[in-house]
Amino acid sequence: MGKSIKIGLLGSGTVGSGVIRVLEMNRPQITERVGTPIEIKTVLVRDVKKPRPQLGDVRLTDKIEDILDDPEIDVVVELMGGIHPAREYMLRAMEAGKSVVTANKDVVAQFGKDMFAMAEKKDVDFRFEASVGGGIPIITPLKQCLTANRITEILGIVNGTTNYMLTKMTECGADYDTVLKEAQAKGYAEANPSADVDGLDAARKAAILASLAFNTRVQLEDVSVEGITKITPDDIEYAKDLGYVIKLLAVGKDSDENGVDVRVHPVFLPKTHPLASVNGVFNAIFVRGNAIGEAMFYGQGAGSLPTASAVVSDIIDVARDIINRTFGHVRCTCYEKKKLCPLDATSSSYYVRLLVDDKPGVLGAIATAFGDAGVSLKSVIQTRRNVVDHAEIVAITHLVEHKRIEKALKALRKLPVVDEVRNVIRVENEERG
Amino acid sequence: MGKSIKIGLLGSGTVGSGVIRVLEMNRPQITERVGTPIEIKTVLVRDVKKPRPQLGDVRLTDKIEDILDDPEIDVVVELMGGIHPAREYMLRAMEAGKSVVTANKDVVAQFGKDMFAMAEKKDVDFRFEASVGGGIPIITPLKQCLTANRITEILGIVNGTTNYMLTKMTECGADYDTVLKEAQAKGYAEANPSADVDGLDAARKAAILASLAFNTRVQLEDVSVEGITKITPDDIEYAKDLGYVIKLLAVGKDSDENGVDVRVHPVFLPKTHPLASVNGVFNAIFVRGNAIGEAMFYGQGAGSLPTASAVVSDIIDVARDIINRTFGHVRCTCYEKKKLCPLDATSSSYYVRLLVDDKPGVLGAIATAFGDAGVSLKSVIQTRRNVVDHAEIVAITHLVEHKRIEKALKALRKLPVVDEVRNVIRVENEERG
Repeated sequence: MGKSIKIGLLGSGTVGSGVIRVLEMNRPQITERVGTPIEIKTVLVRDVKKPRPQLGDVRLTDKIEDILDDPEIDVVVELMGGIHPAREYMLRAMEAGKSVVTANKDVVAQFGKDMFAMAEKKDVDFRFEASVGGGIPIITPLKQCLTANRITEILGIVNGTTNYMLTKMTECGADYDTVLKEAQAKGYAEANPSADVDGLDAARKAAILASLAFNTRVQLEDVSVEGITKITPDDIEYAKDLGYVIKLLAVGKDSDENGVDVRVHPVFLPKTHPLASVNGVFNAIFVRGNAIGEAMFYGQGAGSLPTASAVVSDIIDVARDIINRTFGHVRCTCYEKKKLCPLDATSSSYYVRLLVDDKPGVLGAIATAFGDAGVSLKSVIQTRRNVVDHAEIVAITHLVEHKRIEKALKALRKLPVVDEVRNVIRVENEERG
Repeated sequence: MGKSIKIGLLGSGTVGSGVIRVLEMNRPQITERVGTPIEIKTVLVRDVKKPRPQLGDVRLTDKIEDILDDPEIDVVVELMGGIHPAREYMLRAMEAGKSVVTANKDVVAQFGKDMFAMAEKKDVDFRFEASVGGGIPIITPLKQCLTANRITEILGIVNGTTNYMLTKMTECGADYDTVLKEAQAKGYAEANPSADVDGLDAARKAAILASLAFNTRVQLEDVSVEGITKITPDDIEYAKDLGYVIKLLAVGKDSDENGVDVRVHPVFLPKTHPLASVNGVFNAIFVRGNAIGEAMFYGQGAGSLPTASAVVSDIIDVARDIINRTFGHVRCTCYEKKKLCPLDATSSSYYVRLLVDDKPGVLGAIATAFGDAGVSLKSVIQTRRNVVDHAEIVAITHLVEHKRIEKALKALRKLPVVDEVRNVIRVENEERG
């Protein structure tokens, strides 16, 4: 057995200690799989004096040079998160001839191109399976296992916090504020929950997934984003009645006519859709390709050990490349420059919930307003549920361009009988069998 | 752009014509992904005079030497099925320095070892993603993306025919013979359906999955197999009432105490299990690892284009290896010799349905017989549904060794009040959250 593969670890938080634990608990298997042991040599930490029993017997340092300038270190594993200085450290590591493994969705979404260029220039690996979907294998499937396909659609539940919250709202009828407090108490949501509930975390992952699926660079600013803060128990209830569940989805679509369309927003998803039964903190990514048809990848999207599963599997792949000198099998796959579909030109079905006057003729006036805007309705119900002295109208539209629904909403808001547009939520995959 | 990668195709049936179609319809994307075009040069067929418009403009031959002796052909794609002569052709192709891609579960399950040895000896690729789960990426995830884990359990719905039949029985209450005829009429089941309904197709896939998951060679004869022919509408109905669905599962378990346990049989699966909502001809493979926790891979397990998706993605991977000279990244991963768990020592929960005399004291006698055999019951119901002048007793046991349930059944059959043991079906994953 040859000399061991030596790792420099940047960051010793939840995922970092998970990586150390996985390498420890599965040491014999991993050594067999690689053909030589993998060893964490040095860990970059903020404070070398703080006791870290969870890190075991490794060298701690607060100087990045102790890792970047150490010729014995073969692989740098970046788990600090954030753009700076993670991006610079990874570039310098590759510049120094070391391969890089990261879980950093921010850097991959924003600076993936620079990372791939450097990896290619220096003939090293740059791997990031853990950046989307935690432990779920999705990056490698997109870069290798599904390459026979032209992928036309990718839908992902890629944020565990919001999926947990929406699942709780669906199961218990609780409102947004209550489930947010519960998620915070359980450690599933941050004190400042914005990155999760406003959809930004999912948007970064959507950019990465769409770039890989459609072979074109999609960045955070290309993704239209809407969070879950406006979802009410009433919306959840109507969804149930109509045969849907509400999920926060990362949505990517690619068509010849419209180009690439990438968004994050809540959707009404038919209960029969494979993603509809993905509940709690689980994540899943659904892919539609012109050869495979439908495929889905499911698992835990966060957490110390699941995320470490992806990081350590990447490390093993890099170690195999080092031993077999097989670098460069797959490089950057964003070889196309596809046009992006402007939001106005995207198409969807919509759920529209209106508070209206409770009197005859209202339904007719509203249906006419939709029709005048070119929006065709699939179903419409009028109820007195949840309201006093008023009625609610809930409409599901057929597939319609975003600009037409905007036009309809503008007209509806002007109608004297409409007191409030209470919510507008896209209905995904309505046409699916 | 360099010279094209040239393919010799063995077999021009459903999957073969799918491969030709996928290479054709996604030609620009595939050429970009590889860096050079992929071209089918020669196809081995039985009768070169038969018109085959679906094959387009390729050279047909009925002589294997036209492919094996052609130095221009880089990759041999074997889609003939069966052991002979597919196995010999693949070995000769590798001997001649060509990489091999196959969908042949029979050869991989029975002669995988020889294939890997030859690939390693000649430094070529041997790939077989399509051999399990059609288009679903599962071989590569097991060989690469999940290598950080010690995998303890793998459960697969890997036969579309039986899953379609069980789904129909569940949805419509139809009996086995009716759904079999319907499946045959739709082309989902063969005229002689034995390989599917008796579980042999699933058993070969179970052997492949278990070998990869547990890093030890599992062969067809190591798999205990039971088909779906004994499942009745009554069993389906009881399953529903008790919160389960009936699925034919490939089951692999690995534990330090018991060794490796691989089986194919129908199971009662809790409705909340991710596999429970995998319906119709869809396949899915559920994996439990000590880092990732639960993961599932879902998609179409058969059909021309889905299977071609896996075959062509393998071809693309091989082509990248040829261009980048990156052979040998992952070789045979069956590096362990684990002991196999004898059937008697396997543990499971069981559903037991008995036809009994309809009189007081029967339930007590039966519960006592279970208890005397060391089988503890989780629930037991007694009904007069579906029977005349008798009663039925349906028991669900706690986790119990196979030999104990056998002992209990022997005792039950001897009880005067028991007229018939109507069915015994394992209950899977009862302990899951």
